[in-house]
Amino acid sequence: METVIPVHLPQHPYQISICPGGLRQIGLLMAERAALTPGQRVLVVANPNVFRYYGDAVAAALTQAGFSVFDCLLPAGERYKTLKSVQKIYDAALAHRLERGSAIVALGGGVIGDMAGFAAATWLRGIPVVQVPTSLLAMVDAAIGGKTGVNHPQGKNLIGAFHQPRLVLIDPETLQTLPKREFRAAIAEVIKYGVIWDVELFEQLEAAPRLDQLRSLSPELLLEILVRSCRAKAEVVGKDEREAGLRAILNYGHTIGHAIEALTHYRVFNHGEAVGLGMLAVGELAVELGYWSRECADRQANLIQKAHLPNRIPPQLNPDQVIESLQADKKVQSGHVRFVFPTGIGAVKLVDQVPSDAIARALRKLQVS
Amino acid sequence: METVIPVHLPQHPYQISICPGGLRQIGLLMAERAALTPGQRVLVVANPNVFRYYGDAVAAALTQAGFSVFDCLLPAGERYKTLKSVQKIYDAALAHRLERGSAIVALGGGVIGDMAGFAAATWLRGIPVVQVPTSLLAMVDAAIGGKTGVNHPQGKNLIGAFHQPRLVLIDPETLQTLPKREFRAAIAEVIKYGVIWDVELFEQLEAAPRLDQLRSLSPELLLEILVRSCRAKAEVVGKDEREAGLRAILNYGHTIGHAIEALTHYRVFNHGEAVGLGMLAVGELAVELGYWSRECADRQANLIQKAHLPNRIPPQLNPDQVIESLQADKKVQSGHVRFVFPTGIGAVKLVDQVPSDAIARALRKLQVS
Repeated sequence: METVIPVHLPQHPYQISICPGGLRQIGLLMAERAALTPGQRVLVVANPNVFRYYGDAVAAALTQAGFSVFDCLLPAGERYKTLKSVQKIYDAALAHRLERGSAIVALGGGVIGDMAGFAAATWLRGIPVVQVPTSLLAMVDAAIGGKTGVNHPQGKNLIGAFHQPRLVLIDPETLQTLPKREFRAAIAEVIKYGVIWDVELFEQLEAAPRLDQLRSLSPELLLEILVRSCRAKAEVVGKDEREAGLRAILNYGHTIGHAIEALTHYRVFNHGEAVGLGMLAVGELAVELGYWSRECADRQANLIQKAHLPNRIPPQLNPDQVIESLQADKKVQSGHVRFVFPTGIGAVKLVDQVPSDAIARALRKLQVS
Repeated sequence: METVIPVHLPQHPYQISICPGGLRQIGLLMAERAALTPGQRVLVVANPNVFRYYGDAVAAALTQAGFSVFDCLLPAGERYKTLKSVQKIYDAALAHRLERGSAIVALGGGVIGDMAGFAAATWLRGIPVVQVPTSLLAMVDAAIGGKTGVNHPQGKNLIGAFHQPRLVLIDPETLQTLPKREFRAAIAEVIKYGVIWDVELFEQLEAAPRLDQLRSLSPELLLEILVRSCRAKAEVVGKDEREAGLRAILNYGHTIGHAIEALTHYRVFNHGEAVGLGMLAVGELAVELGYWSRECADRQANLIQKAHLPNRIPPQLNPDQVIESLQADKKVQSGHVRFVFPTGIGAVKLVDQVPSDAIARALRKLQVS
C-alpha cells in the first residue's frame, strides 16, 4: 500500500512516497523514481541511534539495487546542527569520492535532513539528495520543500540553501521507534496544517480520542495525518518554492517559537514544542488584535493540550528578550517582524506591523496559569 | 562610455556593465539595474589591499544612493578561500543584521567574489550579491556565471553553490593597481576564450605587439578583451547555467590546471598560470590523439609565451600524481576524467575516455625544455 503525493515544481518535480515497509525498497525506488543510476555511489547520513535501527536494511536494499553504499554518522541533536558537522559530511564525500551523479541519503529526523541536504546542496555545487525521514516531524515538514541548512551560534537556520530532494520516502514503520516526546512535538506541526490549510485535518484531530502517543492513534488516522500534512506542505511549496509569498504561512508559530528555542538555548523545548508555544502566543495575539475568534483560539489550545504539548512559557523568560530576538530572525523585512495570523480554521493572513507591546502581553498571558 | 552585456538566464537575467569610472556610480547602478532598494543594508566584502584603494569610493557612492553600508575585510589569497573565512562573512552579516533584501557587494578578485558569493548564496538561504571584480581574471571569468564556493583542504572549489549576481560591474580603471603577474595570469583565460569560442579575439591577441603587461595594451584592445571575454562567458552560461553540457567547455585547461595548483600547494602558480599550463598540456594531448593540428597548438603556445606565462612544469612534479589528483576533481564522471579538446581555433569537443599514459606523456613534454 503506497500513497504517492506529487510536489509540482517546474524545475524539479518529485514525489513523496508514503509506503509502509518502504525502507526495504529504497534501492529500487531511487533507481525508478529519483532518476539515479545503479552503480553510482550513495552516502547514507544518519545519527548512530537511527543507523543502528535502520542502517543495515537501507544499506542492503541499496546494495541489492546496485549502488555502492557508504555511511557518515553524526552525533544526534539540534546543537550538532552546525557547519562543523557538515564538514564531516564533506570529508566523507571526499573520502568516498562522491561525484556529481552520486547521491546523499538523509536517514533520520529534521536535523540530519537539514544537514545532509545542505551538504548535498553545496558539495560540488549540488548533488542529488533523497530524504528518508524517520521522525514524524521530519515526515510532515522538514523533509519536504528543499529547505536545508545549519544553525549559526547566534541563530537557527541562518546558514542554508534551497535544494529540493529527488525523492522523499516515508516509511511509517520507522515511527515505532520514535520517542513519545518527539511524536507529540510533531503533532504541533500537524495541528499547524489544520489551522493554516486543512480544516478537515483539524476536525479529524478534534475527533480523535487521544493525540499524545502514536499507539493511541488508529492506523487510519496516522495515515490521514501523514497524507494530509504532506499534501498541505507539497501544495504550499508547489505554489511558492522560494518563500516569495505564500510559503511564509508555513511559518505560523515559528517566529516566536524560534525565539523561545534560542533563548532557552535549545535545551528546554524541542522544535515542535516551541512551535506549539509560538502558535498559542500568536493565537492570543491574533485574538487581541481582532483577526481571530476566541472560540478558534480555544479549539487550537485544546488540541495542543490533547497532544500533551507544553502550553506555558517559563517565568524566567523575559518577553522583551523574545521581542529583541525576533529582530534577528531571518524573516525580518526592513526591521518589521512578519506574523502569520489565523483568520479562521484553515485560513491565515500575513501581517507586517504588529505592536511590540501586544506581543509582550500575549507572551505574558502564557506565563501565568 | 558604458558597454552592457546581457546574461540571458530565464530565472534571473542580469547585466554585465563595463564602465570606466563605474565604481563611483555603483549606488545608482545597484538601485537601477539590480532592483535593490535604497535604504537597505549593503555589506562590502573585500581584502584590505583592495579596500584601501577603492573602499571609500564604493562606500561613498552607496551611501549617497541611500544604502546603509558596512564592510567585512578578509585576508588576501587563495589559501584563505575557506569555510573559516566565509564564517567571518556570516558573523558580519549577523552583526549588521543583513535581511533577505540586503545585498553583499563582492569587491575584489576571484577569491573574494567566490567567498562573498557563497556567503550570499547561503545566508538566509540566499540574499542578493553584486559582483565588482577588480582583477582582470575576475572580470573576464569568476564574476560572471554564478559559480561560488570555497576550497576543501584536499581540493579546490569542492564546496559551493550556484548563485547568480544581480549585477556585474566592471570598472577597467581598477586594473591600474593590478600587479603584473595577476594581469598575465588573466590573459591565460582570455586566450582560452579565443581557443574555445572566439577566433576573432584569438587573432586580435596574435596581432597585438605585446601581451605581458597592461600598459602595453592599447585602450581599444583592452576594451575588446573585456567585451569579447565577458560576452563569451555570458553566452556559454546563458545556454547552460548549471554545467549540464556546454558550460563544461569553459573548463578547457582547468582540470589539469587545478591538479597542478593543488600539487604545488597553491604556492608556485596562481590560477591563471596553472590554467595556461593546463591548456598547453591539453593542447599537446589533443595533438597526440589527433583532435588538433600541431599548427594550432603552436599558435596557442606562442600566445602563452607572448603573455610571459610559465610554459614549463616543475621537474619534481610527478605526472602520475597529477593523474591521481584528476580522479578527485569534481568534473569526474563515473571515474572518467572529462577533457575539453580544441578541434580548431574557436571550437572544442568534450572527450571522456583519455588514456592515462597519453596524459602522462603530454605532461612530461612540458617538463623537458
